[in-house]
Amino acid sequence: MPLRITRRSALAAGLAGLAGRAAEQDSRAATAVERWGIFETSLRVAETGNPFGVAMTAQFSHGHRTVEVAGFYDGEGVYKARFMPDTEGEWQWKFGGQSGGFVCTPQTPGNHGPVTVRNTFRFGYADGTRYCPFGTTCYAWTHQTEQLENATLATLKGSPFNKIRMCVFPKWYAYNNVEPRLYPFGREGEQNDLTRFDPRFFQHLEQRVGQLASMGIEADLILFHPYDHWGYASLPPEANERYLRYVVARLAAFRNVWWSMANEWDLVKTKTLADWDRYFHIVEECDPYQHLRGIHHSKTMYDHAKPWVTHASIQSDEFEKTGEWRQAFGKPIVFDECKYEGNIPRRWGDISAREMARRFWLGTVLGAWVGHGETYLDANDVLWWSKGGVLRGESAQRIAFLRQIMEEAPDLEPVPNAYYPCIAKAGEYYLYFLDYHRPAQYTFDLPEGLKFTAELIDPWEMKVTAAGDVTGKAEIKLAGEPYQAVRFKKSS
Amino acid sequence: MPLRITRRSALAAGLAGLAGRAAEQDSRAATAVERWGIFETSLRVAETGNPFGVAMTAQFSHGHRTVEVAGFYDGEGVYKARFMPDTEGEWQWKFGGQSGGFVCTPQTPGNHGPVTVRNTFRFGYADGTRYCPFGTTCYAWTHQTEQLENATLATLKGSPFNKIRMCVFPKWYAYNNVEPRLYPFGREGEQNDLTRFDPRFFQHLEQRVGQLASMGIEADLILFHPYDHWGYASLPPEANERYLRYVVARLAAFRNVWWSMANEWDLVKTKTLADWDRYFHIVEECDPYQHLRGIHHSKTMYDHAKPWVTHASIQSDEFEKTGEWRQAFGKPIVFDECKYEGNIPRRWGDISAREMARRFWLGTVLGAWVGHGETYLDANDVLWWSKGGVLRGESAQRIAFLRQIMEEAPDLEPVPNAYYPCIAKAGEYYLYFLDYHRPAQYTFDLPEGLKFTAELIDPWEMKVTAAGDVTGKAEIKLAGEPYQAVRFKKSS
Repeated sequence: MPLRITRRSALAAGLAGLAGRAAEQDSRAATAVERWGIFETSLRVAETGNPFGVAMTAQFSHGHRTVEVAGFYDGEGVYKARFMPDTEGEWQWKFGGQSGGFVCTPQTPGNHGPVTVRNTFRFGYADGTRYCPFGTTCYAWTHQTEQLENATLATLKGSPFNKIRMCVFPKWYAYNNVEPRLYPFGREGEQNDLTRFDPRFFQHLEQRVGQLASMGIEADLILFHPYDHWGYASLPPEANERYLRYVVARLAAFRNVWWSMANEWDLVKTKTLADWDRYFHIVEECDPYQHLRGIHHSKTMYDHAKPWVTHASIQSDEFEKTGEWRQAFGKPIVFDECKYEGNIPRRWGDISAREMARRFWLGTVLGAWVGHGETYLDANDVLWWSKGGVLRGESAQRIAFLRQIMEEAPDLEPVPNAYYPCIAKAGEYYLYFLDYHRPAQYTFDLPEGLKFTAELIDPWEMKVTAAGDVTGKAEIKLAGEPYQAVRFKKSS
Repeated sequence: MPLRITRRSALAAGLAGLAGRAAEQDSRAATAVERWGIFETSLRVAETGNPFGVAMTAQFSHGHRTVEVAGFYDGEGVYKARFMPDTEGEWQWKFGGQSGGFVCTPQTPGNHGPVTVRNTFRFGYADGTRYCPFGTTCYAWTHQTEQLENATLATLKGSPFNKIRMCVFPKWYAYNNVEPRLYPFGREGEQNDLTRFDPRFFQHLEQRVGQLASMGIEADLILFHPYDHWGYASLPPEANERYLRYVVARLAAFRNVWWSMANEWDLVKTKTLADWDRYFHIVEECDPYQHLRGIHHSKTMYDHAKPWVTHASIQSDEFEKTGEWRQAFGKPIVFDECKYEGNIPRRWGDISAREMARRFWLGTVLGAWVGHGETYLDANDVLWWSKGGVLRGESAQRIAFLRQIMEEAPDLEPVPNAYYPCIAKAGEYYLYFLDYHRPAQYTFDLPEGLKFTAELIDPWEMKVTAAGDVTGKAEIKLAGEPYQAVRFKKSS
């Protein structure tokens, strides 16, 4: 279901490509915006002075509630404001002396609204649907050729991934030492003009974020990162703040946006911890929808217990610390980077598909969410983790299998001190993953008096084998192989 | 080469079985004892009172040096003293009013003397030969039938193992809830008589320790353990002390003895940390040869930095902590238990042969020594880790392969902060193990100006493949599989 941007503007020329099937409206017509869609209103501003320096807000009212959102200058004399309504019914808006109304209609199928934290350690869409993040990583995919970016979207469409980590700024790093097509700031030769943004850069980003939304994929937008060549990692604080306000003004209305304050924040040597805290606050203040906010580390973890952090975005393969981190942070634990399936000569990019599949299972049964990435050497340096393109690995289909299992399951919680790792809904559903353990048999301790169907699951072969009906202390013969799972579902 | 016990005694009847081919000597004959062999002298004592309560020492002198050793009552009116000479030439002895002499002759092939720590993190025999411990575990193997014990010895003979962890006391634990053939203390029905030992128990133990010595296997003798049914884990302190003095008096002369103060000391709830320290001191004081002393934990590590501990005997699979522990303790790090190859429904006894082989390699290249154990379910509950018998697993031959590699290598030290784990002799020899990493190629950073032969090693297939001659920054194409090793040897 495509993300629609409903535009109230006579200035729509040149914007039609923004989100595929944008429904353009005349301001005097009865305007309809679906719930968690985007309403956009535009006006013309003087191009004298620096229009990026102009601050204008729009007010959106429904009954007694008024939401104020910051507008943004979109170039060519056009100033805009966007809004994502969360409540059906009539809304009124005011913007730069103009005003009008629209009707928020029910969401269309496939639009579940934005994701928020639910029940401490899990996530859910605004419409009540559960959201189990199974993310991947293509840091620089929106800085590639049109053809490659479209190939990435096509790959994502056939993949199990419903979240993608992606950088706003272009990236300069191994396998990616190339100039982007577009730059976020004005640019004269190799000089940045930090007083103005390049709206084309952001329009392009929005097109891609909108396409992700249409595919049901959350865009975990990385706002800062250290892999820099253009000065974006070392902007002066006032430029960082303008940038954050501009990005939030433009993108917050996209229901599938998550804010990732940084990738490897501790490698960005130009910002202090106080800076990061302040940048969090800016995003928190400016975002009318309170999209999810995280920050990803390299070696030094940010304190995810800070109240403005919604979930712990972690780089680690120490899954055994999940319980400790759940307790410390009281938030969902997302292993956004647990190393990547691939074969590059980097410790973080050379694990096997089997190892990646194992990590997804282990993290999952311990009560975390695990993220994917892929780094296979390529003659043209097109590695999924950076540029996107196609997936060559063998873990994605196993992740699809696990995602299906988790989505069919009820809400699960890890069992404390389980002898073998287990995530469960007490009395109803138990999912064990035995990791490298491979006992010939094991007596599972199920509640007495309830009947369960037992199943052996081979996570690599993606096979589920019935193992009979059991109750109480149930001895189950196992496959004798490592990396196997066992599932018990209440049958009566 | 069998361990010989040279006996000076007219009382040898009944002792012939002690060490196979004991060379029995009359006191008046010219007595010869090989270096690190055993000289034993006996005398008759009154059986009135409790002869176990009698304390008699023997003095052994060579030139200006005199070594005093405690004797022990061996039952049937015979009191003995044993001595392991470490220096060739004439020795004089005095014992209970008797005296005599013997000549210490050169050691025979296969007798390398006792093992001690060498160069902080490694081990060596007294004759200068390097000793690389590749141990296994058969806790209760000397408490089985004659037939099973002999089967264990036959298995050990064909195995790569040159150290075995074994309990003095019998063991009561899962798969081993059986009465032993012999008991260490006097016994009336189910009552212990702690005032006397049963010499047959110790004679039997000595026979087995002697047989191990003949096979070049170190006996890592566990003095206390918590798996108890007879009260041996909760003896009063004075009984523990008598026991320690008796064991040391009897067994210290065996060149292949190591003292393991306990298995899982922290699970023995009847002894305080001060008790353990004191027991260490007793062994340290009584042992004229200063055999290696360690103590093995379950959850709480003993402080291996204490000066009476010679090496850190560790239960863990956190090999990544090896560097930290080397620094903290400044002693050899021995992962005596890193879980066992097997399929029993216990987390510590259900890992695959591949995982066990991986652990040996990983621990080794990180600068530790790793121990083996095997726990396959058996219809008769004969599990190698407890009772011995036969090895059914597939890790032992891979351990043999690794042992051969390590014994052919020069003395190696782990490379600090190596990108992939590496143990090396700088400029001469580099052994990498890439664990789960599997880059398609990697540029190894070898010293410029020296030539090396590169070899790919598959630890599971036990295959070594030549990979050409290289120098300096050497890009090597790798197998693309996890758990591979690479070796560089200086060729000029």
